[in-house]
Amino acid sequence: MHPSSYTTVVYYEDTDAGGVVYHSKYLNFCERARSELFFAKGQTPMQEGYHFVVKELNARYFAPARLGDRLHVSSSLIERKKASLRMLQEIFCGERKLFGMELTLACLHSDKPARIPDFFDEVLGV
Amino acid sequence: MHPSSYTTVVYYEDTDAGGVVYHSKYLNFCERARSELFFAKGQTPMQEGYHFVVKELNARYFAPARLGDRLHVSSSLIERKKASLRMLQEIFCGERKLFGMELTLACLHSDKPARIPDFFDEVLGV
Amino acid sequence: MHPSSYTTVVYYEDTDAGGVVYHSKYLNFCERARSELFFAKGQTPMQEGYHFVVKELNARYFAPARLGDRLHVSSSLIERKKASLRMLQEIFCGERKLFGMELTLACLHSDKPARIPDFFDEVLGV
Amino acid sequence: MHPSSYTTVVYYEDTDAGGVVYHSKYLNFCERARSELFFAKGQTPMQEGYHFVVKELNARYFAPARLGDRLHVSSSLIERKKASLRMLQEIFCGERKLFGMELTLACLHSDKPARIPDFFDEVLGV
Repeated sequence: MHPSSYTTVVYYEDTDAGGVVYHSKYLNFCERARSELFFAKGQTPMQEGYHFVVKELNARYFAPARLGDRLHVSSSLIERKKASLRMLQEIFCGERKLFGMELTLACLHSDKPARIPDFFDEVLGV
Repeated sequence: MHPSSYTTVVYYEDTDAGGVVYHSKYLNFCERARSELFFAKGQTPMQEGYHFVVKELNARYFAPARLGDRLHVSSSLIERKKASLRMLQEIFCGERKLFGMELTLACLHSDKPARIPDFFDEVLGV
Repeated sequence: MHPSSYTTVVYYEDTDAGGVVYHSKYLNFCERARSELFFAKGQTPMQEGYHFVVKELNARYFAPARLGDRLHVSSSLIERKKASLRMLQEIFCGERKLFGMELTLACLHSDKPARIPDFFDEVLGV
Repeated sequence: MHPSSYTTVVYYEDTDAGGVVYHSKYLNFCERARSELFFAKGQTPMQEGYHFVVKELNARYFAPARLGDRLHVSSSLIERKKASLRMLQEIFCGERKLFGMELTLACLHSDKPARIPDFFDEVLGV
């Protein structure tokens, strides 16, 4: 998978009384970017009973985003295993990196761990 | 149904950069109060394929809530029809009314309009 | 103000266990559309101590949106008073209207009701 | 600090179309528990220009929570440095651990790194 990019804007709902984006919202922005990988191919992230869930994530916060900021989410595949993926996702405002996260996603079928089906490979580009 | 009361607290996630609770969050607080009507009876709001959806709401904002405020949501039934309900929900901080909403809820079964089943009557107290 | 249009996509975070968009999220989508009126002019909705808050809203839900749906929010000004605005906002998926809302916004300065300043007129196009 | 416990319930707004709690919401539940440490002492997490922000977090997801689940968040201090804290937070449903997270919080004053003021020590119990 080549790094893909998703763009979003910070709205009031993303901020909190501290004046900056609420810390868990960066995870939402990253999830939108992952879903867009599917939407961009005319697919959805839930297909034939298969979908991915987050098993582990390690995140670092470098600088805060504020109301009206235009953010870019970069996503790249680190490793594809039989039943899970490891990805790196980073969020930038202009050239400035605000957030970085490595995460492990497990493939489920009917809520049980499952091999990643072949039809997800087109989306993942592997 | 006698007016029932649900209590919640304003956390960071409920506020925005304006320093007060984000306007749509009051609807969330009211929805939690409706769900608690079911949870309090050991039931869930989705049963045997039946659940309620919001069809219409008229809301007024009187004063803002802030981080750490303890809020009370009062809920009362205005009218029970065969396939829908009308309710009044109000949110208070101490004696002060912050928010009021009248809403119409429609009963669905398998995503189609349906008569409210009898087993919901215990929850609704009618 | 000519009707303006804002486009968004339904992500996982917008949906709930009922399989459709959570009812208060439509208010978020409308708020994003209002903020974009400002962002599109290189401005922010909080300027020189002035901003708008929702005082009243009347909303109707016509049909649900689902994961991956591309939504269009149409916004138009109904009335501009000295210290408040009335707007109509509607959300469509393709040609289908899902949601409509009339709302009253009050202008505040330092958290007190205030006349809408002239520099907001360019944004509002009145 | 002795481990402290905060209890919350899973509402519709916390779930997504996958039928379980949206992954970033567990971070929200943990943040509520941290804020409750302050609220329980009659204090707020923002005092005299000081507050904490998340700098880093490592999270693991063991099992999903569902609508109506009653969750317990356990919080304990791992390390208190001059300008930052390390904490462990875990979320349980009954005896079952659903989620665990280690996180580093930095103290800010006027948005700049600052020594943790003495008046926060009563809250932290150190």
